[in-house]
Amino acid sequence: MTGARPGEPLEVMTRIRGVIFDLDGVLHVRDAALPGAAEAIARLRRAGLPMRFVTNTTRRPRRAILEALDGMGLAVAPEELLTPAGAVCLRLKERRERAHLLIHPALAEDFHDVEQGGDAVVLGDAGDEFRYSALNAAFRLLIGGAPLYALAANRYFKDADGLSLDCGAFVAALEYASGAKAELFGKPAPAFFQSALDGLGCAAQEAVMAGDDVEADVNGALALGIRAMLVRTGKYRESDEARLAPGGMVVDHAGDAVDRILHEL
Amino acid sequence: MTGARPGEPLEVMTRIRGVIFDLDGVLHVRDAALPGAAEAIARLRRAGLPMRFVTNTTRRPRRAILEALDGMGLAVAPEELLTPAGAVCLRLKERRERAHLLIHPALAEDFHDVEQGGDAVVLGDAGDEFRYSALNAAFRLLIGGAPLYALAANRYFKDADGLSLDCGAFVAALEYASGAKAELFGKPAPAFFQSALDGLGCAAQEAVMAGDDVEADVNGALALGIRAMLVRTGKYRESDEARLAPGGMVVDHAGDAVDRILHEL
Repeated sequence: MTGARPGEPLEVMTRIRGVIFDLDGVLHVRDAALPGAAEAIARLRRAGLPMRFVTNTTRRPRRAILEALDGMGLAVAPEELLTPAGAVCLRLKERRERAHLLIHPALAEDFHDVEQGGDAVVLGDAGDEFRYSALNAAFRLLIGGAPLYALAANRYFKDADGLSLDCGAFVAALEYASGAKAELFGKPAPAFFQSALDGLGCAAQEAVMAGDDVEADVNGALALGIRAMLVRTGKYRESDEARLAPGGMVVDHAGDAVDRILHEL
Repeated sequence: MTGARPGEPLEVMTRIRGVIFDLDGVLHVRDAALPGAAEAIARLRRAGLPMRFVTNTTRRPRRAILEALDGMGLAVAPEELLTPAGAVCLRLKERRERAHLLIHPALAEDFHDVEQGGDAVVLGDAGDEFRYSALNAAFRLLIGGAPLYALAANRYFKDADGLSLDCGAFVAALEYASGAKAELFGKPAPAFFQSALDGLGCAAQEAVMAGDDVEADVNGALALGIRAMLVRTGKYRESDEARLAPGGMVVDHAGDAVDRILHEL
């Protein structure tokens, strides 16, 4: 029971019981922690708020992400980190599908116990592996009827030298050419957010998401009833605010987000 | 004046005064003429019907297309061949735009007098040139505001070893990531069909298009009021017939198309 009075927005009355963070662009950019990010996380830990870190980055395996966070003073426990690769591996095993992996070489270790084959196409941000021949091989499996499992559908990410094409561009290319519709496993897939809520042990309206991707992070969370904040770091561009779904907040950075959370928004 | 009586379909009464052919998949597949194609063209020439050959193939320059057709016994006059490259070159000159070309190396000669630069992105079927870095460079120009000129938006074409990704997949990728909307210069762009009609010197309802691409060739022509036939050669797949717009016909091959044309459909 929330105790909301008629005419009063429900969210004002609901206590925050869990926080979901995107990683790259919010707490760090590539291998550098953003100013104040470590302190922001530490404040939430001191306040006893459980956290989940939910990334669509598909250029690094779980192990490397955990190591890098640790190296930046942003230590995260393995159970706190959610990546789309785990969800896809589960699906492949459930359906006993052999996978055609079009992923970044660095991500291969997250698929080490997946059988290779042409039953399903798994698409990540393959980076320089996105060659015509590799995309064409995936296309041919799709027109033969294989399902397309997308690790992410992000349009772009902030790379060292500027915004760069992300996985979603190649999802769009394969969908357009083959007529197949990708099943998305990363944000904003509801199942992916739900697994974060399950881990936090709270309901959607008791959780807050902070991210720099207006669609995958913020609008995706809002669609599930999770409160959400767009940070003005990472790949944020001013024009993103026009695409923000109703109820979304804009904050300067992760520290600002934590201020709002600790003051119950 | 057509002399159509009330209640009688106009198209029955309109004489055919010009024929538009797609090339690859209709008259030849790669470097081999399809059986009966040369005879089909010869019959139309004997009947005195003017023709235009309108291709979205962007892996070959005009010169090479004309030479290859000649070598297959399908000789076509230079003024009878229309390619999207010519239309894009005209646009670049009109607007004094320097072009970032993401095209097949073989097509470069059709752009020999175009100034290179970042004012506009020109996208063709670059084939193996579709590397991540090249697509990303184009993406960055687009988010900076450069227009995207697409030579074609075809989903796939019939390659020697099967169906293969065509230009449209990469148009979709760049549109999705950048938010830009491509301007199409190849089929089914109305202006491209109109230039064929202008060359034929006839109205849309006096012309017939024959192609193996249900969208770019057949539905594109129908949208302009040109009669159109889908041939069951080239990249034709049975499922294409469900996508055929009202009024579209299906014929077995180019020879069958010419039979219908000479018998006024």
